[in-house]
Amino acid sequence: MARVLIRNVSVLVVPESGEGRVDDAQDIQIEDDRITGIAPTTEQRRDGSGEVVDGTGLLAVPGLINSHTHSPMVMMRGAAEDLGIDDWFNRRIWPMEVNLTPERVRVGARLACAEMLLGGVTTFVDHYFHAEEIAAAAIESGIRADLAPTFFSSAGPQAIEAAIDTARQLSGLHPRITASLGPHATYTVSDDDLRRTAEVARAEGFRIHLHAAETDDQTQASLDKLGVTPVEVLERTGVLDAGALIAHGCGIRESDLPILEQYADRTAIASCPKVYLKLAMGPVTPIKALRTIGVPVGIGTDGAAVHNTLDVWEAIRLTALTQKQREHDAEWMPLSETLRLATRASATAAGQSTQLGALEPGRQADIALIDLSAPHNQPLHDPRAALVYSARDSDVHTVLVAGQVVVRNRELLTMDLPELLAEARSLAHTLVDLSKGGAVQHYAP
Amino acid sequence: MARVLIRNVSVLVVPESGEGRVDDAQDIQIEDDRITGIAPTTEQRRDGSGEVVDGTGLLAVPGLINSHTHSPMVMMRGAAEDLGIDDWFNRRIWPMEVNLTPERVRVGARLACAEMLLGGVTTFVDHYFHAEEIAAAAIESGIRADLAPTFFSSAGPQAIEAAIDTARQLSGLHPRITASLGPHATYTVSDDDLRRTAEVARAEGFRIHLHAAETDDQTQASLDKLGVTPVEVLERTGVLDAGALIAHGCGIRESDLPILEQYADRTAIASCPKVYLKLAMGPVTPIKALRTIGVPVGIGTDGAAVHNTLDVWEAIRLTALTQKQREHDAEWMPLSETLRLATRASATAAGQSTQLGALEPGRQADIALIDLSAPHNQPLHDPRAALVYSARDSDVHTVLVAGQVVVRNRELLTMDLPELLAEARSLAHTLVDLSKGGAVQHYAP
Repeated sequence: MARVLIRNVSVLVVPESGEGRVDDAQDIQIEDDRITGIAPTTEQRRDGSGEVVDGTGLLAVPGLINSHTHSPMVMMRGAAEDLGIDDWFNRRIWPMEVNLTPERVRVGARLACAEMLLGGVTTFVDHYFHAEEIAAAAIESGIRADLAPTFFSSAGPQAIEAAIDTARQLSGLHPRITASLGPHATYTVSDDDLRRTAEVARAEGFRIHLHAAETDDQTQASLDKLGVTPVEVLERTGVLDAGALIAHGCGIRESDLPILEQYADRTAIASCPKVYLKLAMGPVTPIKALRTIGVPVGIGTDGAAVHNTLDVWEAIRLTALTQKQREHDAEWMPLSETLRLATRASATAAGQSTQLGALEPGRQADIALIDLSAPHNQPLHDPRAALVYSARDSDVHTVLVAGQVVVRNRELLTMDLPELLAEARSLAHTLVDLSKGGAVQHYAP
Repeated sequence: MARVLIRNVSVLVVPESGEGRVDDAQDIQIEDDRITGIAPTTEQRRDGSGEVVDGTGLLAVPGLINSHTHSPMVMMRGAAEDLGIDDWFNRRIWPMEVNLTPERVRVGARLACAEMLLGGVTTFVDHYFHAEEIAAAAIESGIRADLAPTFFSSAGPQAIEAAIDTARQLSGLHPRITASLGPHATYTVSDDDLRRTAEVARAEGFRIHLHAAETDDQTQASLDKLGVTPVEVLERTGVLDAGALIAHGCGIRESDLPILEQYADRTAIASCPKVYLKLAMGPVTPIKALRTIGVPVGIGTDGAAVHNTLDVWEAIRLTALTQKQREHDAEWMPLSETLRLATRASATAAGQSTQLGALEPGRQADIALIDLSAPHNQPLHDPRAALVYSARDSDVHTVLVAGQVVVRNRELLTMDLPELLAEARSLAHTLVDLSKGGAVQHYAP
């Protein structure tokens, strides 16, 4: 049995409801992949065996969870700027994606895993093509991932079956890998294909991770064309009944709320606010309304082709800031609620509500140790405020996933960073090449 | 004559209009406090004397400018969370400010200067009490500052005279220090006092730095009480004629634009968007309308009691993001325009349009060298996009102010960081003590 003791560390505690707090001077006991005990530090170590991580001056938080991303899109970082959503898809991203190959996806995913681990992200919920390559990168890097092999109806039934088969193969491949089914969106996958996906999901125990109601314009287009909202499409096709992670949901209408409420035990939303501002998508996800009816909302970055980073600290901060703005209420989305979204609710969005998202005995030992001693966090009147409003990736000191130390003193231990950066640089031009023409899809919701 | 050569560096070029670009493999020649030449790197160094900074792999950008802040408020970082603007002022900040002493202001300013320099900020435009202490900290740290000694009408004529006298004493105190007059706001300083301030400003060559039209609610309150907008108050009192830096301006109305246009040669706005979101202040500064009429808009953080950091990268990023949102146009506030605001326009806001804000011979050698090699900036399809959307404080490698290297390889050279942090921690509790009662002012615009 592998043992790790994190000694003399402060611990962030975010209960199911009410105020979060920080308990100072704690020891965290880890056996294999799990936390087995958290107790006040004693003079003498209770156990002589295993690795000791000195937590003095550090704050232990549940490893961050990126609730919605397309990790290999780091390869397109900065290559699609200053465009609205139509042009972003139709002039850049979908024409670029004709260049995807398994190798390029793997190289992008390796870079993404490195960026996320160095920033304290221990789990990412991914939605992309060639997901088996992303799994390989995640396994190599030491990060945890839920992977949804993505498909469009336009690719035909064989491609859909292949994507579903990939999800089957990824399930159980590795203790840190789970799989979901990944229809792209309500506007790119037919009702028949969504129904078939929901049937497989129910029969085989998958969740469904897809884009829906990304903007209110999409919702209006759905109403105009089909007479129903995207959420109603998800209901009538059985996707909500099977259990879904819905990316974005900025276009969720008041009338959708009673529907979502019925499935609150198995449906979550992932909100990625930087993207909503950058693409001028209109109002952000109605998180307050969703929380009121008990629907969990996780926080994500979306892909770096629009978010430019996979920085979940930035996503957390922007969630609080844009929610205050949306509700015209500076008292809403207070520190503790923001941290609850970033921890427990994001764990639920990742499909692991009992395993991740809190530092408690029995849960997975996915832990980030944060160093809040730099000038931009000092003096430290309230560490919760520091986590939400001033901490940044470079404050992440040590990271454990499933009990394994993967980042120590800001150094990635699991991969050769110069090598993977060189590899990404050498292939970067191939991803943004528009000379071949064509596109993997056309955006016309 | 002190000489510095920055060798083999990439250089950000942001022209007065049109697209920005990056010129690779350049040498920047510096003599004393000025840039004397920028030319392609040659095999051999042209000059054997002076210090050489190796710029290989780094991007030189004009030192960042924090166009509006209250630097000593870092001492209240995280101590006034989740409050609307009324409670933020009346229940936290103004009651806390009864605790200000010269020593506490100096300690806060030292911490602020350290944070800013490490983040690539070479100039800050400050507005606070005990400004002579802030000047001392700025001089010690090596940063450049424009300081506006702040006053309320409620403090009485003697206090106003004392603040104006402080501005006089700070002018010419040091080559890196300039002074402005600092009436707090249109809603806390009477028209008579604003008139008197404008007279002194015109007679003695000062600019006036103050808060006005911070929210549309303030503008409406001014219309209800006085029948004029805050901008009209600034005009009728001669403040615009004297030349002003107006903090925030989110409440600038359409009807104010022709007034501001008349004074566009001597009036600028400072926009601090994180604060507008966090305090749920409503619409952000109408930057597009202001740029259309030629009014310069600089980017700032405001004080860390609300912004939580003095991170100007974050302020730049949020400016672009919130402007796209405000205008419902993802093509607006493109990369080059964002960088122009952060450089040339912020230099104008700092009152130094010909001396700062561009890397050109004849200008001050205020330079930040940025390392874009970390995973979150790679691959680097567009360095301009990296500067706006993915770079962060920790990417700042080396900083020069007035030709002096003040940060090298991420280490602050001018002050003892552990000592100043310890000093700030030891006094932090004194600043947030509400036990004395009272307040320096009451917010009721």
